[in-house]
Amino acid sequence: MKRTALMTDVGRDWDAFHATDISSKLPYFSRENRLYDCLFSQQFDRDLLDRLFGVADRLREVTQSKTGADAVRRLLSHKRAMLYFVQPSTRTFLSFLNACHILGLKTSEIRDTSTSSEVKGESPEDTVRTFSSYVDLIIMRHPLPGFVEKTAWFMNRVKRPVPIINGGSGKDQHPTQALLDVYTLHRSLKGGPEGKTIVMVGDLKRGRTVRSLSYLMKNYKGVKLVFVSPPQLRMEADILDFLKRHGIPCREADDLAPVLPEADAVYMTRIQDEHDKAGESKSLDLARFDFRAEHLKVIKPTAIIMHPLPRRHEIDVAVDEDDRAVYWRQERNGMWVRAALIAHIFGVDGLIPAGDKH
Amino acid sequence: MKRTALMTDVGRDWDAFHATDISSKLPYFSRENRLYDCLFSQQFDRDLLDRLFGVADRLREVTQSKTGADAVRRLLSHKRAMLYFVQPSTRTFLSFLNACHILGLKTSEIRDTSTSSEVKGESPEDTVRTFSSYVDLIIMRHPLPGFVEKTAWFMNRVKRPVPIINGGSGKDQHPTQALLDVYTLHRSLKGGPEGKTIVMVGDLKRGRTVRSLSYLMKNYKGVKLVFVSPPQLRMEADILDFLKRHGIPCREADDLAPVLPEADAVYMTRIQDEHDKAGESKSLDLARFDFRAEHLKVIKPTAIIMHPLPRRHEIDVAVDEDDRAVYWRQERNGMWVRAALIAHIFGVDGLIPAGDKH
Amino acid sequence: MKRTALMTDVGRDWDAFHATDISSKLPYFSRENRLYDCLFSQQFDRDLLDRLFGVADRLREVTQSKTGADAVRRLLSHKRAMLYFVQPSTRTFLSFLNACHILGLKTSEIRDTSTSSEVKGESPEDTVRTFSSYVDLIIMRHPLPGFVEKTAWFMNRVKRPVPIINGGSGKDQHPTQALLDVYTLHRSLKGGPEGKTIVMVGDLKRGRTVRSLSYLMKNYKGVKLVFVSPPQLRMEADILDFLKRHGIPCREADDLAPVLPEADAVYMTRIQDEHDKAGESKSLDLARFDFRAEHLKVIKPTAIIMHPLPRRHEIDVAVDEDDRAVYWRQERNGMWVRAALIAHIFGVDGLIPAGDKH
Repeated sequence: MKRTALMTDVGRDWDAFHATDISSKLPYFSRENRLYDCLFSQQFDRDLLDRLFGVADRLREVTQSKTGADAVRRLLSHKRAMLYFVQPSTRTFLSFLNACHILGLKTSEIRDTSTSSEVKGESPEDTVRTFSSYVDLIIMRHPLPGFVEKTAWFMNRVKRPVPIINGGSGKDQHPTQALLDVYTLHRSLKGGPEGKTIVMVGDLKRGRTVRSLSYLMKNYKGVKLVFVSPPQLRMEADILDFLKRHGIPCREADDLAPVLPEADAVYMTRIQDEHDKAGESKSLDLARFDFRAEHLKVIKPTAIIMHPLPRRHEIDVAVDEDDRAVYWRQERNGMWVRAALIAHIFGVDGLIPAGDKH
Repeated sequence: MKRTALMTDVGRDWDAFHATDISSKLPYFSRENRLYDCLFSQQFDRDLLDRLFGVADRLREVTQSKTGADAVRRLLSHKRAMLYFVQPSTRTFLSFLNACHILGLKTSEIRDTSTSSEVKGESPEDTVRTFSSYVDLIIMRHPLPGFVEKTAWFMNRVKRPVPIINGGSGKDQHPTQALLDVYTLHRSLKGGPEGKTIVMVGDLKRGRTVRSLSYLMKNYKGVKLVFVSPPQLRMEADILDFLKRHGIPCREADDLAPVLPEADAVYMTRIQDEHDKAGESKSLDLARFDFRAEHLKVIKPTAIIMHPLPRRHEIDVAVDEDDRAVYWRQERNGMWVRAALIAHIFGVDGLIPAGDKH
Repeated sequence: MKRTALMTDVGRDWDAFHATDISSKLPYFSRENRLYDCLFSQQFDRDLLDRLFGVADRLREVTQSKTGADAVRRLLSHKRAMLYFVQPSTRTFLSFLNACHILGLKTSEIRDTSTSSEVKGESPEDTVRTFSSYVDLIIMRHPLPGFVEKTAWFMNRVKRPVPIINGGSGKDQHPTQALLDVYTLHRSLKGGPEGKTIVMVGDLKRGRTVRSLSYLMKNYKGVKLVFVSPPQLRMEADILDFLKRHGIPCREADDLAPVLPEADAVYMTRIQDEHDKAGESKSLDLARFDFRAEHLKVIKPTAIIMHPLPRRHEIDVAVDEDDRAVYWRQERNGMWVRAALIAHIFGVDGLIPAGDKH
C-alpha cells in the first residue's frame, strides 16, 4: 500500500490504522527509501541493518580524531531535537542525548509531565504538537503502549511534521535496544551473527530485549538459538512460532552450564521481578541461570557475553575483566548506532568524512 | 528622565522606583537605543515592533539553509544564557531555550528552587546575582508579581550587570507572549494589523494575553476590537478606558457566531477556571464561545484564527486542518520573535547574513 | 610508589587502597605530569596552582573577544562531560556547567538518582560505569564521603577509564572550592598570598572551605592566619597541628573588629546551623562575627573581603558596593579556575590562543 493511500484511507482514523498489521503500516513511516520515523523493530531488514551498522562504524572511526569529531558535529548542527521522556529511563536517555551531541544536534529535554500544560486539560496530541513546533526531531519514551506510534501517525498528518524515534513505548517496542543488540553481534562476532549459536538466558518470558533479538535473527542465515530459563519464565509461544515459520532452529533448556560450550554469544538478562504478581520469582532457584567466573573456562575463546544492563547478580563482577565480556561495549554501541539512525533519518549518513586512517 | 538620573535618584530605592509610572522607568532598562532588559509590553513601540519583526523574518528565512543556520548559530556562540524558571511553564521555557539554541547561546537551566541555596537563608537578590556570575543573560519566570522587574532594577546597579528578559512575572506581565501575538498578526494578516477587526473571545477578564494584545493595538492605525465573552468574564474597565483614550473603537458581545463574518483575526482563549473562587465558571454556558468547524464557513477567506494555547474544547480539532488556523504557527512565531529579541538586546541583529533567496 | 605498582598491589583492593595515606595515593590519580582525576586539595602543590591560575588568567583574557571565546570553545568541542550531582548544589553545578560550556564540552546532567537504574538493584559502580560509557569526563558530587574517590579508583581500573573531578564529596573534600579561594587570593591580592595576613571568620569548626584554605597556605611563604570564631566553633586541632608542623603562624580570637586593621584578606563564613545537634548556634552572640559597613573604614585600602556564599547576615549588603568586596568575583573565579582545571586534565591548556591584547 502506498503511503499516500494510507494517509487518505485508514490514515484518517487512528483506530483503523492501529489495527492494520505492521508490515502494511511500514511505508507510512518511511520516505525516499529511508526511515522517517523509527517505531518498530520490524522496520529493520537486513539491508537497513547493514547500512546503519556501516554508518555507526564510520562515525566511531572518524570521531577518533578531533578533526573528524568536529566534522561529524557539524553534520546536524543546524537541527534541534527534543527528548520527550515521560517514563524514567536514565541510560536510554543519556545514550540518545550523547548521540545527538555527537552529531551536533541541540537538545531540549522533557523528563516528566508534571510541569507541562497537560495538567490544564490539553490533549496529549496538542502537547506533542506544541513541543514539536520548536524542534526538528522528537525522541520519545512513554509508558503507554502504542502512544509513540500514535504520535508518529498523527505527526505525519500535520503541516509541519517532524520524525519520531521510539525510545521505548510501554512494554511492546524498544527498537533501538534491538538495534544495539544486533549491532553488538555484528561488531564483536567475527563474520557477524550468520551461522552462530546464540544462547539467551534468564527471564525470557518478560524480557523485551530477548524477544526483539530473536525476531531480528530472521535477517541472518544459519543462526541457532538456545533459550535457557526457569520453566516459569520461558520464551512465549508467539516467538517460538515465529522462529519455526522462518526455519530458525531453537531449543529450550533449564540449566546454563551444559549449554555454554557451544555458545558464540551468551545473552544474559535479569529476572524482572518488578513484574511479579505475587513475588513468584523469589521461589525460583536462579543460581543455575547466573554466569559465574568459572564459566569463563568453558566458553569458546571467541564467544562473547552480552547483557542489556542493568545487571544484578546474574553476572559475577569478576567476569567484567575478561575480554569476552562485551556488555559495557554494548552500551557504547547503543550510542553509536543511535547516532547512525539519526544520521540516516536526516539523510546525512553519506556526508560523514573519511577517518584519518583511510 | 535620563537613565543616570534615575539611577542616582529613585534608582537607589526599590520601593520608590517601583511606584514610579512605567513610562518614566523605561529609560532605565534601555541602552544605546536598544532594550537592555525586556520587562513590560509597554516597552514595545511601533518602531521597535517593526525592527523586531524584521529581525525575526530574516532569522527564519536565513536559517532555512544549513549555511544560514550555521551562520546564525555563530552570532552569539560566545554567550551563555540562564533560564531561571521557578514557576513551571514548559512551552515558554522550550520556546526560549530553542531561541537561544538558534543563536548559538549555551544554556543553563534552573527549573525549581528546591535545590538552590535559597533554602539556606540566602536572599533572592543574592541567589540571582550568584547565578548571574556564570552567564551573560537571564531569562526569568517567577510567580511573584514585580519580582522580575526588581531583579532587573537590582542587576542594573551591580558591577557586572546582565540583561534580564521577563518570561512571565506573576499575572501582571508576559511581554514576549504579547510580542508573538502581534508578530502573528503582522505575519499572517496581509498588511499587518492596521485597519483590521480583531475579535477576542473567551475569558477576557482573567486572560493576560488579551489584555496585553489590546494594549499594543495602540501602535496600529484603524484597528477595531470586538470582545466576546460571558458577561461574568468581560474585559476589565482599565483596558476599556485605555482604548477609549487612544481612540481605538471597541464593542462587547456575548455570542461569537454573529460577530465572526467581520473578523480579520479571531483570538480565542480558554476559560481560566483555575482562577475560579468557587467553581463559578461551571455554571456558564460556554458553548457560545467555542469555535466550531461550521464557523469556518462564515469567516472571511483571509481571516486567521489564533489561540495562545493550551487549548481545551474552545476550538474544535477539525479546525486545525484549515489554512486559516494559525495557532501552531503562532507557537513557532514565539520562538523566532524571542530569538529576534535576544539578537536585538545583544546588538547582533545587524549581523544576520542574507538568506539564499536574496 | 609508582602508579603501576599501586594498581597491581593495593590497587586491586579498595579497602586497602582507601586506607593508604593520601600522599601515597596521588600518583594513582595522575598521568604524564598532569592530574588525571581531581579528588583532593592535597593534589595542589605550588607548581600546579601556578599553572592552573595562569591558565585561568589566560582563558578569561582571551575570551573577552568573540574570536577568542570561539577559539576557546573549540578546544574541547569534541568531548562530552557528565555532571553527576546526586547531592543538590546549584551553584557548584552551574559553575562547572558553564566552565564546560566555555571550553565547548557537551554536557549531560544527572541531578538526582530517582530515575536511574540504581533502583533496580544495580550496584553504584555499575551505574557510574554505564554512564561513563557515553562521555569523556565525569564531574561528581555525592553525599557519601569517599564515594567520589572510590569511583575514580575504580574507573582507573576499567578498559575505558574517564577522568573524575570531585565536585564535593560528603563533608570531607571539595577541592575546586579550595582552588577558587586560593585563586581569588592570587588574583585580588597584589603579589598573591605570600607574606599576607588572612583572617578567617565564623564557623571554623564545621566550615570545609576554611579548613582546605588553611591547608593550602603551606604552598605560600610568610602567610599569617588569624582565626576568629565563637569559642564553640573554633578551628579543629588537626588543622592547628598541621599549621604548627609547617611553621605557619596562626592565632585565635573571638572578636572580629580588633583584628581587622591587620588583615590583607578577610574570609567570612556563615554559621552552619544545619549541622547543629540541638540548636546550639542560636545561643551564640554572632553579632561580633559579622562584617558591617562601618568595618570598611578600618580595613586596609588594599584588603579584600571574601565569602564562599551563600551569605546570610554575616556581611552587610551595604558592603557589596565597596571595591574590596570580592565575593562575587570569587564566584566567577570558580568558573574560570574550573575551566582551567578541565583544560589541564585534557592537556589542551597549551593550546589556548593569545588574547587580543598581546
